[in-house]
Amino acid sequence: MTSRKYGVVDTTFSRVDMGKIAISVIRKEDPDAEIVRYTVPGIKDLPVGAKKLLDQGCDGVITLGWVGKTMLDKYSYLATSIGLIMVQILTSKHVIDVTVHEDESEDEEKLVEIAKDRASKHALNLVKLVKEGGSALTKYAGKGLRQGYTHAGELED
Amino acid sequence: MTSRKYGVVDTTFSRVDMGKIAISVIRKEDPDAEIVRYTVPGIKDLPVGAKKLLDQGCDGVITLGWVGKTMLDKYSYLATSIGLIMVQILTSKHVIDVTVHEDESEDEEKLVEIAKDRASKHALNLVKLVKEGGSALTKYAGKGLRQGYTHAGELED
Amino acid sequence: MTSRKYGVVDTTFSRVDMGKIAISVIRKEDPDAEIVRYTVPGIKDLPVGAKKLLDQGCDGVITLGWVGKTMLDKYSYLATSIGLIMVQILTSKHVIDVTVHEDESEDEEKLVEIAKDRASKHALNLVKLVKEGGSALTKYAGKGLRQGYTHAGELED
Amino acid sequence: MTSRKYGVVDTTFSRVDMGKIAISVIRKEDPDAEIVRYTVPGIKDLPVGAKKLLDQGCDGVITLGWVGKTMLDKYSYLATSIGLIMVQILTSKHVIDVTVHEDESEDEEKLVEIAKDRASKHALNLVKLVKEGGSALTKYAGKGLRQGYTHAGELED
Amino acid sequence: MTSRKYGVVDTTFSRVDMGKIAISVIRKEDPDAEIVRYTVPGIKDLPVGAKKLLDQGCDGVITLGWVGKTMLDKYSYLATSIGLIMVQILTSKHVIDVTVHEDESEDEEKLVEIAKDRASKHALNLVKLVKEGGSALTKYAGKGLRQGYTHAGELED
Repeated sequence: MTSRKYGVVDTTFSRVDMGKIAISVIRKEDPDAEIVRYTVPGIKDLPVGAKKLLDQGCDGVITLGWVGKTMLDKYSYLATSIGLIMVQILTSKHVIDVTVHEDESEDEEKLVEIAKDRASKHALNLVKLVKEGGSALTKYAGKGLRQGYTHAGELED
Repeated sequence: MTSRKYGVVDTTFSRVDMGKIAISVIRKEDPDAEIVRYTVPGIKDLPVGAKKLLDQGCDGVITLGWVGKTMLDKYSYLATSIGLIMVQILTSKHVIDVTVHEDESEDEEKLVEIAKDRASKHALNLVKLVKEGGSALTKYAGKGLRQGYTHAGELED
Repeated sequence: MTSRKYGVVDTTFSRVDMGKIAISVIRKEDPDAEIVRYTVPGIKDLPVGAKKLLDQGCDGVITLGWVGKTMLDKYSYLATSIGLIMVQILTSKHVIDVTVHEDESEDEEKLVEIAKDRASKHALNLVKLVKEGGSALTKYAGKGLRQGYTHAGELED
Repeated sequence: MTSRKYGVVDTTFSRVDMGKIAISVIRKEDPDAEIVRYTVPGIKDLPVGAKKLLDQGCDGVITLGWVGKTMLDKYSYLATSIGLIMVQILTSKHVIDVTVHEDESEDEEKLVEIAKDRASKHALNLVKLVKEGGSALTKYAGKGLRQGYTHAGELED
Repeated sequence: MTSRKYGVVDTTFSRVDMGKIAISVIRKEDPDAEIVRYTVPGIKDLPVGAKKLLDQGCDGVITLGWVGKTMLDKYSYLATSIGLIMVQILTSKHVIDVTVHEDESEDEEKLVEIAKDRASKHALNLVKLVKEGGSALTKYAGKGLRQGYTHAGELED
């Protein structure tokens, strides 16, 4: 049996060390897996970071981005999102994208909480998809799950 | 005769289980077909989900996304839309994109109704295109069909 | 001599049967040509429709899209436009894009008129480019031609 | 010695014949060069026009676009810009993009002036890059050069 | 041992000679490295400039762009950002993107300061990534580093 290999790409721009959180979740959920970490300056560098790790044989990648408050930061978010999706299309591998927007809360403590919750839940999502494939999350389909917030839940029929 | 193979990609973010609806329509319309379901966390994961299913030999895919109310959710929608179109261009296969925006209605019951109607009608569109090809829908060309709402109808000449 | 082959991609979302108009212009301007029609649900399905027809040997394609009034419709327009341009770049073939925006006029009669004029004029543009190449329209370069409206004309020097 | 080959792509939508201006500058600056002109309906057709000329062996291309005043025109500008950049990335050749926005001035005479200045200066830029390579413009790096307007100049340190 | 090769792409539109700054930092941090400079007219020409230098064997590139104040300048920024990310995805090499927006400050002295700080810090980031790889910046992950401004710092847990 060959063990799985996960990539974690984070930034120096982020104000929370989400890479560390993601790594600790992956290690707990898939103890035999290899984990490679790659740190870049900012979100626009995340796609190539993910691409490099996939080139090196990772089965899936989690990226951890932090986005400022201005319109230009949001345009950078848009460009990055398109790039991360293109990496996935070209490699047919998951790059789960964790993004925290600095304007999600005025309260710094709350921002930290959002970052931790989102990074943890998405690291778990990545492990499930890589280990078990596309049916692993099907029991939660349509359940209104949220990362960074409490779950919204399924709407009553 | 080899039977057709359809892909269904849905999300845990969605608040309605649209994947189930799509599968039930496809099964009814093309009973011998194989159907593969793939569940991802959110809309930005839909393009790679579709790509993976097309790599596995699906003849066409339906994706079922749910989009939040903020401007950032809309940017994610834009990035996802570009990604889904790129998947189609690179594979020359249809990926019919069902999207429900949480701000389409204040009323949760109405949202469920929109989701069901849109998922059903587009699942039928997918089956028609995959089974019968590009002339299957020509009798409805210019007829102002709508999914999630009542048809707008053709404008009088 | 092998005859030319044109693709026409239209939608069931549209409220005017622009595909029929385009076909009738192409048939008149290039009577020996083969014309293939492909009908899709909405604008985001146009790029793959065009790609499929180019894969089947079309020398050029015209797409006929109808866009709703909301900001989300406009984002779909943007994603579609990027997709249609990518199809052209990857195939080095023209995909002339006719789009009618439902908010171009409050008056439904006027909308029909815009749709007919735009579809006709662009079908003619496509035939000229496919039959005669890149110099066919050079005599109109800088002349302020408009489709759907009266020509704006050249600015005096 | 093989002579250089330039591509010029312009539109019938434009209200100034910028293609003619670009050709005259290129001819003056590189008299032995071959120049190929390709005229398309509007800006969204520019990327494939440029791609076709590069496929035919052009060493570089100048595109000359004219953009209307509405938000939709600006979305078309954005899609076109992405397309022109993709053409360059895929071919590793310059496509210098001249765009005049109809809302750059209320005054038609001023618009003509902007168009002429921008087309001339960028035609010269293209010739310099094609003839002399990436160091040709280095003496102007950071100098605040503008096309269509007077130069902004370098900021004092 | 073969020495490293860096690419520096700057513009004539910029009002500060950021290319010179980047080169001086790279030379200081990696004295044996080869540095190639490529100057283009404006930001939309940066992606092909970077692509050309990567084609010529550069291990990484820094681009130095200056963006005007209008909405159209911001759309050009968005298109450029997408292009720069695509170059990186297609080559699996870093293109560190330094952008100064003319509306970041009303004060020209402050703008010069931002440009210098951002160009210097990102040149250093590039050298670190090229010389030492993806773990070089990991000690700063989540530390809230900023280029052009003082560091924001890590949020307390």
